[in-house]
Amino acid sequence: MDLLLCGSFDSEERDAWLVELQRAMPDARWHLHVPTQNAGRIVAAVVANPPPGSLQGLPRLRLIQSLWAGVDRLLDDPSLPDVPLARMVDPAMSAAMAETALWATLSLHRRFFDYAQQQRDRHWYPLPQRRADEIEVAVLGMGQMGRTCARRLLETGYRVTGWNLHGGTIAGMALEHGLEALWPLLARSDIVINLLPLTAQTADLLDRRFFAAMRPGAALINLARGGHLVEADLLQALDSGQLDRAVLDVFRQEPLATDHPFWCHPRVTVLPHSAAATDMRSAASIVAQNLQALRDGRPINHLVQRKRGY
Amino acid sequence: MDLLLCGSFDSEERDAWLVELQRAMPDARWHLHVPTQNAGRIVAAVVANPPPGSLQGLPRLRLIQSLWAGVDRLLDDPSLPDVPLARMVDPAMSAAMAETALWATLSLHRRFFDYAQQQRDRHWYPLPQRRADEIEVAVLGMGQMGRTCARRLLETGYRVTGWNLHGGTIAGMALEHGLEALWPLLARSDIVINLLPLTAQTADLLDRRFFAAMRPGAALINLARGGHLVEADLLQALDSGQLDRAVLDVFRQEPLATDHPFWCHPRVTVLPHSAAATDMRSAASIVAQNLQALRDGRPINHLVQRKRGY
Repeated sequence: MDLLLCGSFDSEERDAWLVELQRAMPDARWHLHVPTQNAGRIVAAVVANPPPGSLQGLPRLRLIQSLWAGVDRLLDDPSLPDVPLARMVDPAMSAAMAETALWATLSLHRRFFDYAQQQRDRHWYPLPQRRADEIEVAVLGMGQMGRTCARRLLETGYRVTGWNLHGGTIAGMALEHGLEALWPLLARSDIVINLLPLTAQTADLLDRRFFAAMRPGAALINLARGGHLVEADLLQALDSGQLDRAVLDVFRQEPLATDHPFWCHPRVTVLPHSAAATDMRSAASIVAQNLQALRDGRPINHLVQRKRGY
Repeated sequence: MDLLLCGSFDSEERDAWLVELQRAMPDARWHLHVPTQNAGRIVAAVVANPPPGSLQGLPRLRLIQSLWAGVDRLLDDPSLPDVPLARMVDPAMSAAMAETALWATLSLHRRFFDYAQQQRDRHWYPLPQRRADEIEVAVLGMGQMGRTCARRLLETGYRVTGWNLHGGTIAGMALEHGLEALWPLLARSDIVINLLPLTAQTADLLDRRFFAAMRPGAALINLARGGHLVEADLLQALDSGQLDRAVLDVFRQEPLATDHPFWCHPRVTVLPHSAAATDMRSAASIVAQNLQALRDGRPINHLVQRKRGY
């Protein structure tokens, strides 16, 4: 089985992926470039934000497997071959995302960002403390990551409501769906966590209207995509006092420009897109399962519906 | 039933306690000072670090109920009447303590303190990420708070070992006990959380010898008492690189002096004794249960063994 590994990573990162993928599929032949003489051998491409156009000229390609959970940039490439596309859904990555969501929620709820500022000011002042069951958390996006985060927050004692665009039910969780249900949910939530996929429907969702609908003094945690957030609107909502704080892991442009106002805003926490790194071992074994399914003619997991965008 | 409320709190705090205690025990008569004519009426004292000597001259006193979990300062008073002494064991407070322990553990494990520094430096650099099940956490102290913290950390995926001086078993938890078991536990732990009671046996436990036994590059979270920690030894262990970080909620002297080196140490997080504030509503109802048990001749909960010190 001939496979193409291609992405916008540096050679060190690419080599690390290759080691793990070879370990997970010892009998596969991996190519790092389209083999000019034998392009017809490649049956699947394993990709991590490949440069646009890099999957062209593969006549027997039957599967594109993304190493990333988000496929929005991949789908933006009009030259992407029209073959099944699978995205990464990795329990290890969801667990890491839930850790970050829990840390950010605890930091906001228990005022640890304020205490960090007090420490810099050498100011000893215990702040009022609320119980977790007095804090309403909205989790937007009910994919594997959103569900895992919501469950972990529920276990920690928070009042959690999940929300997505299209509905469905999840055992043991309060769930709302559709835009008309979003506004009242925002109005009653102390903390809003974004874990939506980036699609035409969700791009720019976190805008002026969204912030105006939020409870005054509430906080935003964006762990999904920079394209969800209208950055200027967030700055205005923070500076007007409508929002208290924001914890941001993703940005319109990454790395965040050195002169971006988020870096030094006293009520913005900047993370360098590190809320949930892919665990290479775990991800390689998930890729191997899908490629073996392809070879054996079994169903492929986590296929993207291109129209829906995830 | 005549009751004395006394402590080293300001009048605002005292009044807030009085409101909650009266709500929980509407038929009790509360006194804020020993009534000179009728000292013999007082059957129980509800105390929060009362000034030494303040419980003298109460001939019919049958119970001292602490509003705090730690009774070390109370037991330091040689004039403390020799009547049953109950300490506060409040699930709401244990839950708050577990939130702080979880936040500090996540902050260390997922490098959020490092990211805060990187933000101040406008430096975008994702750091390597470890899975929770690769992190060994030792929880010292297996009272209600230690057990609640350990369980929450286990649920979050960490490898947790509980430790105390005197042994016992706790369902579903790896447990070590005694000093001889402490040193190897320290040698293999990435994060050590102190939740021990402060007694003659545990005072100054966190000293040079303790830090030398810890795994190089490990971190300390002290949520128990300042008297556990030899502060100069910790500074030395941090500055030599033996310890990577410390998260400290309690100190020898509180408030922490403005010129204390902890305030501006780049690898020390200072919290103003706010890891777990008492929830007055919840605590007042626990006090009421014990006072009703006293009146009805039923057993009192959470009595302190004075020799043991907690």
